[in-house]
Amino acid sequence: MSVATTGHDYLSMAIEIATTNVRNAGGPFGAVVVAPDGRTFEGVNRVTANNDPTAHAEVVAIRTAAQELGTFNLSGCVLYSSCEPCPMCLASSLWARIDRVVFAADRHDAAAAGFDDAVFYDYFEPESDRKLMPVERAGDGEERLKPFKVWDSLETRTDY
Amino acid sequence: MSVATTGHDYLSMAIEIATTNVRNAGGPFGAVVVAPDGRTFEGVNRVTANNDPTAHAEVVAIRTAAQELGTFNLSGCVLYSSCEPCPMCLASSLWARIDRVVFAADRHDAAAAGFDDAVFYDYFEPESDRKLMPVERAGDGEERLKPFKVWDSLETRTDY
Repeated sequence: MSVATTGHDYLSMAIEIATTNVRNAGGPFGAVVVAPDGRTFEGVNRVTANNDPTAHAEVVAIRTAAQELGTFNLSGCVLYSSCEPCPMCLASSLWARIDRVVFAADRHDAAAAGFDDAVFYDYFEPESDRKLMPVERAGDGEERLKPFKVWDSLETRTDY
Repeated sequence: MSVATTGHDYLSMAIEIATTNVRNAGGPFGAVVVAPDGRTFEGVNRVTANNDPTAHAEVVAIRTAAQELGTFNLSGCVLYSSCEPCPMCLASSLWARIDRVVFAADRHDAAAAGFDDAVFYDYFEPESDRKLMPVERAGDGEERLKPFKVWDSLETRTDY
């Protein structure tokens, strides 16, 4: 593969590995994390192939980049994705401190291909009744604070 | 560990493994996926320990459950978490088709302990300017549809 040096090239890389992934029993999605020094870390959708519902291309690329760079903080990195990232991938990118996200196909292109995330986007809307997946609080006793209390008392913790 | 049989017991399990995880160089978060047959799959926060920004307790529990159960679809499962799930964990649960989520400590408890996800919740609000992490579309040429076209032509694909 030729060396990608522009945003357009990185996006083409993401589209190319997405296409190859389909022929390799994966979903039609690819992503590339580009580090400030130009190193690239690829990810492709392996949800069905690996029985991992979180293995979207963007998440895989982020996990790979973090492993290879030896840090959980990808500040300065840019994420290129063949398709508009779903809320899981956006939130994963936020946690990874990714600087910026660039995508090619959008959610409507994906829906037309049978990948409709609309109910997931809707779930995060303020007016969502969250019936799709109810989230409830329970156990409001003091026990709930135990992990934080131990954390707070620990000298050797890694804050993040 | 005693066999958990009620929702309260599963929540206590999640809190217990969160506490143990702090003493094992992890973050103060634990989660348990409970399958319809009562099998449990644990996850703890390993973000800093494993250099994986996506390794929140809930995501780890979901990935483990999916691996062990041999499916990317966790319909019928309930997720118990020691703390209110962030948007990444909620979206991961949605993709995993988790039935229901139950948590103990809430986002305010977490913020008081130094784990404030407020900016991430805000990011998903409709009025968010997304300045925290800009997301832009590029490359609207036909190339963007190539992965979907190959996907559509494939006989052996696994739809999901």
